[in-house]
Amino acid sequence: MADIKIGLIGAGTVGSGVVKIMNKQNAFFQESLGLPVSLARIADRDLEKLKTLPVGNAICTGDAADVINDPEINIVIELIGGYTFAKDVVLNSLKKGKHVITANKALIAKFGPELFATAKEFGGSIHFEAAVGGGMPSIKTIREAMIGNDIRSVYTIINGTCNYILTEMTEKGAAFAPTLQEAQRLGFAEANPALDIEGGDTGHKTAIIASLIYDGYCDYDKVPVRGITEISADDIISAKELGYTIKLLGVIKRKDGEEAVDVRVNPVMLHNDHILASVNGVFNAVLLEGDAVGPILLYGAGAGEMPTASAVVSDIIDVARNIKSGDTNRIPMHFYAKENELTIKGIDEIESRFYLRFAVEDKPGVLADIAEEFGKRNISIASVMHKEAHDGNDFVPVIITTDMAIESDLRDAVVAIEAKAFTHGKTQIIHIED
Amino acid sequence: MADIKIGLIGAGTVGSGVVKIMNKQNAFFQESLGLPVSLARIADRDLEKLKTLPVGNAICTGDAADVINDPEINIVIELIGGYTFAKDVVLNSLKKGKHVITANKALIAKFGPELFATAKEFGGSIHFEAAVGGGMPSIKTIREAMIGNDIRSVYTIINGTCNYILTEMTEKGAAFAPTLQEAQRLGFAEANPALDIEGGDTGHKTAIIASLIYDGYCDYDKVPVRGITEISADDIISAKELGYTIKLLGVIKRKDGEEAVDVRVNPVMLHNDHILASVNGVFNAVLLEGDAVGPILLYGAGAGEMPTASAVVSDIIDVARNIKSGDTNRIPMHFYAKENELTIKGIDEIESRFYLRFAVEDKPGVLADIAEEFGKRNISIASVMHKEAHDGNDFVPVIITTDMAIESDLRDAVVAIEAKAFTHGKTQIIHIED
Repeated sequence: MADIKIGLIGAGTVGSGVVKIMNKQNAFFQESLGLPVSLARIADRDLEKLKTLPVGNAICTGDAADVINDPEINIVIELIGGYTFAKDVVLNSLKKGKHVITANKALIAKFGPELFATAKEFGGSIHFEAAVGGGMPSIKTIREAMIGNDIRSVYTIINGTCNYILTEMTEKGAAFAPTLQEAQRLGFAEANPALDIEGGDTGHKTAIIASLIYDGYCDYDKVPVRGITEISADDIISAKELGYTIKLLGVIKRKDGEEAVDVRVNPVMLHNDHILASVNGVFNAVLLEGDAVGPILLYGAGAGEMPTASAVVSDIIDVARNIKSGDTNRIPMHFYAKENELTIKGIDEIESRFYLRFAVEDKPGVLADIAEEFGKRNISIASVMHKEAHDGNDFVPVIITTDMAIESDLRDAVVAIEAKAFTHGKTQIIHIED
Repeated sequence: MADIKIGLIGAGTVGSGVVKIMNKQNAFFQESLGLPVSLARIADRDLEKLKTLPVGNAICTGDAADVINDPEINIVIELIGGYTFAKDVVLNSLKKGKHVITANKALIAKFGPELFATAKEFGGSIHFEAAVGGGMPSIKTIREAMIGNDIRSVYTIINGTCNYILTEMTEKGAAFAPTLQEAQRLGFAEANPALDIEGGDTGHKTAIIASLIYDGYCDYDKVPVRGITEISADDIISAKELGYTIKLLGVIKRKDGEEAVDVRVNPVMLHNDHILASVNGVFNAVLLEGDAVGPILLYGAGAGEMPTASAVVSDIIDVARNIKSGDTNRIPMHFYAKENELTIKGIDEIESRFYLRFAVEDKPGVLADIAEEFGKRNISIASVMHKEAHDGNDFVPVIITTDMAIESDLRDAVVAIEAKAFTHGKTQIIHIED
């Protein structure tokens, strides 16, 4: 059996980490595999940077095509990011019969069916442990360790930027905008943070997990996604008073016997006793509930050079073992196809408890009017906090938590309440998980 | 390729769970593997019980030899427990060329080298995910997901009985003996709880993990093991006052450049901010620190019918895929051999912070005398709590926490202090982790 030869395209943050680990663990990998596995070619636009990395005998190039067209390379690692050039790199590599490893969640979430169909056609495989939860073994746990389970639900805190911002807001009682600025200054948020703070990144990862646990295809564009930009210091304070912590969660649930899946990304008030409530800062966590094993929590660094590289390297060794044994389709991905599309619940089917914060005039009868709109729709109120007006403030917050309700009924009630003369501005609506 | 045929020996709690999952997921496994995988024979002394399980077409027998001698069976699952008959079953199965799956931590910890040597000789393999942490994928995470990492340290809460008892003592301020009795009544402790409460079970699992992370053999008999039987309500209360929680931990650490490994099982005062401090009740957790990935925490049910069966089934599917591809030595275990024995640190090399509780006469000069013995040995005192005497009590507790100290120096100091006329009874010594 010949050596396993790897081509790396993109030696940015994560790619640099992969070069370092492959260099450091070279002898161990060879011993464990029983054959050499090495980086043969590395492509990056910044050739000067490559000179600073322990590239060993790898041939460095500025042109990705040099990697893709090398017939000796078995595995191509795509660490470019984005989904234009990166998509071409992955498709062209697959068409050359190579196996592909990527950390690109947007690419998998948006073009998964096309990519996996191409892999199947040309006898290759695609591996993406690093795409979901960085260094945490979430894909391996779902697809291998929990294979004997029907997974009932998944709750993820899987975007470090959002979790950092919410943790800071909670600890300091700070508002969103200055906390984001501080996170940017410290390097915990991108210069353009939209994909993180608007929930898209969490959505990509959540759509991938939903596809894997239900052996189907979850179309990211159909997943309701709401980020953290509308969370205010008032909400953070109310959450504390109620015994909750606000987190941005990816939620996946399916009830026994139902076909439609509740897949969504939104801020959630988690009861302080909930194990995810104590996942703070840039850390990520995935809470999986299996019918046999019960809850399994994975916790770790969801991003960063070395944690993400650690996941890429675990894929490298898995693929190398598959190539060695000839079983490159060891864990099939055929289900990740358009014809297996999952049905995603709309808000007329999503059931949850809710937190609502209204701004209303401080006058008699307001609470009765609000309660009436809930009552009409059979939504039961669990708690009410009606605060005193501050000096010079015409409007006071009324905070209501509900029992389980259908989200569309709840939003109907809010529309009706907002139409009344006594309400002021937009009502905050946040899901509650106990 | 023929079917994968499995023989199950021992259909007790975990074995019953395996039968149920293999029955429920039969069609899915066949689709995922591309060939049938089924329970062909089941052996248990209690044939009546087997009639209550969904055994499908499996041939039921009261004799383990019927399973071991069936030439069509590829995989034998040993779920008998103990290490006399169970050891024979495993060795005889390996000698017949079968692959073995077991949940038996005592067997692996005590006889690992002999078992793995036999597997190698006869071309078989041994899998034991269920032996360490029940349903949590600890072995898979260490050996596959973290393969690119040097693992710096491991902290485990891996015995549900001990963690349940310590959690109850902490929440209720209760003493050890009645809490154990209540745990027995509720089914969270065995009628003979020695292996759990004296730390042996945690020790077996910790020795296995140490072997895996250092690619060597950790001899369980050389691991310092101390259980929770001496933890008193007073210690629990002191821990709370100091901002700590007492947990029984398996600890594995090795410093860069050192050969000897700090492997031990002992109660530890964990700072309340430590992520393991909030692992409560019967739940287990493994905190792994990799040089690349940083901390990874796994949390889940460490025991019980279905969680443990879930781990056994994940091994079944892994082994079935290995058999299908012909690579039954996919993840080598050759290092688990006597000639690769790890050097384990003695207490003259173990460094830790410590909590000490002395019972002393309440008279002048006592504290100075105690402090002098520490000073002589260069042990620096971090905090002192000297409580007032209660009515009618001649002795008062003096609680001291130290900075980092060599354990043997600390124990010397304690011996010297206990020799003084003012001390009464045995001093409590508990490691501290911040």
